[in-house]
Amino acid sequence: MKICITGGAGFIGSHLTDLLIEKGNDVVVIDNLSLGTLDNLSNHKESRRFKFIKGDINDGPLVAKLFEKEDIEMVFHLVANSDISKSHDDPDVDYKNTFLSTYSLLKTMKASGVRKLAFASTSAIYGETTSELHENFGPLLPVSHYGASKLSSEAFISSFVSNYGFQAWIVRFPNVVGERATHGVIFDFINKIRKNPDELVVLGDGNQNKPYLYVKDLVEALYYIWQNSTEQINVFNAGVLSRTKVSTIAEMVIAEMGKGTKIKYMGGDRGWIGDVPSFNYNLDKVHKLGWHAKLSSDESVKKAIRYILGKS
Amino acid sequence: MKICITGGAGFIGSHLTDLLIEKGNDVVVIDNLSLGTLDNLSNHKESRRFKFIKGDINDGPLVAKLFEKEDIEMVFHLVANSDISKSHDDPDVDYKNTFLSTYSLLKTMKASGVRKLAFASTSAIYGETTSELHENFGPLLPVSHYGASKLSSEAFISSFVSNYGFQAWIVRFPNVVGERATHGVIFDFINKIRKNPDELVVLGDGNQNKPYLYVKDLVEALYYIWQNSTEQINVFNAGVLSRTKVSTIAEMVIAEMGKGTKIKYMGGDRGWIGDVPSFNYNLDKVHKLGWHAKLSSDESVKKAIRYILGKS
Repeated sequence: MKICITGGAGFIGSHLTDLLIEKGNDVVVIDNLSLGTLDNLSNHKESRRFKFIKGDINDGPLVAKLFEKEDIEMVFHLVANSDISKSHDDPDVDYKNTFLSTYSLLKTMKASGVRKLAFASTSAIYGETTSELHENFGPLLPVSHYGASKLSSEAFISSFVSNYGFQAWIVRFPNVVGERATHGVIFDFINKIRKNPDELVVLGDGNQNKPYLYVKDLVEALYYIWQNSTEQINVFNAGVLSRTKVSTIAEMVIAEMGKGTKIKYMGGDRGWIGDVPSFNYNLDKVHKLGWHAKLSSDESVKKAIRYILGKS
Repeated sequence: MKICITGGAGFIGSHLTDLLIEKGNDVVVIDNLSLGTLDNLSNHKESRRFKFIKGDINDGPLVAKLFEKEDIEMVFHLVANSDISKSHDDPDVDYKNTFLSTYSLLKTMKASGVRKLAFASTSAIYGETTSELHENFGPLLPVSHYGASKLSSEAFISSFVSNYGFQAWIVRFPNVVGERATHGVIFDFINKIRKNPDELVVLGDGNQNKPYLYVKDLVEALYYIWQNSTEQINVFNAGVLSRTKVSTIAEMVIAEMGKGTKIKYMGGDRGWIGDVPSFNYNLDKVHKLGWHAKLSSDESVKKAIRYILGKS
């Protein structure tokens, strides 16, 4: 199948490119390289199955031309602002990059006759709650503009499905870690310790407790859900049931770096506004479909730390 | 209190203006008069408690100036495209008028320091389902762009609440009928019978079964929920438990018009794409808060028919 991956040069997109090509598909990546890099796609430079287009998904005419010329049958839409905390000061960061990119893509797909869409959604749509988060949880009250933008994207995907006969796969996943990541808590801790090996200052009280999903597990989930669910619109949580505390991440980073760093917690129940201190993901639906993550949250974090430190 | 009503010259907005002034508030209406009319507000022309500004809510600088000059403390946001079926051909109709109007307002409120917002949401966010629709129903898969735009509005209201300390009241309501309405099924039937008194052609099979809420009941609900719920973000269904079939509406219109018109049903389970054939609204939360609609669905429809026919 001829598949377009939006944001395919990014952290998750490039792993998805690897997987879809490995599975025998032709992949066209469109990416404006604002967050992604060509390095992430260097495995495929010589492949006849692969094509890269530098461009912005909000550029409707460019994308329409691409869809037509390449005869695209399916889109995996991964373009988004990937740094949730960044839009607190300016909601437009997420409005434009995370929401409008989706709405623009939907209109182009409508005009171009492309009708299949897989969408990278997020646990952030659920907002801050201690309830168990299954797919039919409500009300959906996201606390970040990122979560709001992803929920708005889901909303319009849904209305395009019913108005124009689209088929869609929406996968809601939590924090993702692993090779080619560019930011996040693990990076922050490593960078801070490199600057000051004596003391690691941690925002919050260290008790935020979240699941971390390994990026290769995630792209397997996207692929599996797409291949195995056949409704007109398919909504799935994907993730790991295990969770990792911020204090555990700090301790794992310190252990791997071997500098005997002391930890200082700044207090409070979250790292930044829009952060969700803790949540409890229900994965029954995707497990029943037959997909399970291979790595636990702690294993994923450890793998990510070792990769960043050049140990694996 | 000094309150701004966006879309206050429209069908629902003008009734809300009546009520808020009656309750002793000062009201500033902003409306671009694309759907609303000054006639709807003629009761208040001479009132010192009332001011009208012609303008578009998407015009941030104009709205910011208004908020500052009038010292606005609270906004009731009613601006929206009100004809759900219209955006099937062009999703931008709802994207711009129903969603972007909200997002633009939120940014202006953030900049202007206005922190209280009541929002007219809709049962259309729930999409097409036979499940009982309580406030915590999910997943939210709207079938119309109108529903998608209202859900997207809710999503950003939620993220503005948590990022900037807004307080919000979100009220999800179904079809509203009554004085000053400008379109909808009752209008359509009356207009069709005026053109051809012999036969009324009805889209669908007549079995669509929905609750119709009387506009004065609705604005009482908006007021009551705002006055009596105190969370940072308050989400309520408002409506009536009774429902009215399309075939019943047709029969009531024919009886009131007295022309002995025959009905011809075109078949199919809905009137137009994006229409929801039937739903089952749970109102426990708002009833527990202490609000109940005064009129049943049938009574509301009858009142609306008689008003349009000039009988009351």
